[in-house]
Amino acid sequence: MSKTQLPPFDPFSLPESNGTIYPEPFASLQRKRFNRRLGDHAGLANFGVVMTRIEPGGQSSCRHAHAKQDEFVYVLDGEPTVETDAGRQKLKPGMCIGFPAGTGDGHRFINETEKDVLFLVIGDRTPGEIVTYPDVDLAGAQGPDGKYRFTKKDGSDY
Amino acid sequence: MSKTQLPPFDPFSLPESNGTIYPEPFASLQRKRFNRRLGDHAGLANFGVVMTRIEPGGQSSCRHAHAKQDEFVYVLDGEPTVETDAGRQKLKPGMCIGFPAGTGDGHRFINETEKDVLFLVIGDRTPGEIVTYPDVDLAGAQGPDGKYRFTKKDGSDY
Repeated sequence: MSKTQLPPFDPFSLPESNGTIYPEPFASLQRKRFNRRLGDHAGLANFGVVMTRIEPGGQSSCRHAHAKQDEFVYVLDGEPTVETDAGRQKLKPGMCIGFPAGTGDGHRFINETEKDVLFLVIGDRTPGEIVTYPDVDLAGAQGPDGKYRFTKKDGSDY
Repeated sequence: MSKTQLPPFDPFSLPESNGTIYPEPFASLQRKRFNRRLGDHAGLANFGVVMTRIEPGGQSSCRHAHAKQDEFVYVLDGEPTVETDAGRQKLKPGMCIGFPAGTGDGHRFINETEKDVLFLVIGDRTPGEIVTYPDVDLAGAQGPDGKYRFTKKDGSDY
């Protein structure tokens, strides 16, 4: 028994952060997005479960597609707008959407309303991930240490 | 582009099932538990996202522990009771709990109320899983084909 079974918890008891690993000028776009890392708090390693709150005018991320990792979003409160190649669609609480790895269809969530939006984001941790960004000159790739390195699309540093 | 990006959806638009792969006498215990497979519907492969509804008196599963796969539960509606080695605790909507792989501490959810309970269950699909059952004479192991085989703890068939 190397791990302790953690008790049930209220997600709002955890601190939230609007930090990001994006380089500028993309980091500044993330300041209205706040994450609570529920899965990490519970000691999970194989996937992440994040509760994301976005204030009016904010975005979850730049629009991106995962090469290897699946992603799933479940809306808890408010009406976030999801943006993909198909365009924009406003969601309601209780709706969900999945983003299978490898489609190349980028997605992001934005808050086009005047109230906060709140949703769960689940993503697995398949190693060696590559993230592509259809709308901006940004490329992300995970090194052997698991850490992401962000560059311009030509591979040069920001 | 080998996969199509599926649109957002309402989980309640999917069919639910009270089917189980348990052998008898355990299968009959599952008839008040109904699952909707949200992640599969969205084309995800690396993890499952299931919306589970349990009617009064039902259980999510027999109390079990995963050797390799993490699990996470988020309560959407009603007050399910989680049972682990630590005992029983009734949860409220918005609460969550994680079950890291490899602790050996078994868990299940039961409905001790007179109203349905509803929650999300997320679990990854690390292959070669072994599932242990502290309370009943049941053992589960995934074969090379990914399918589970259930036996008594001495390895004999039901």
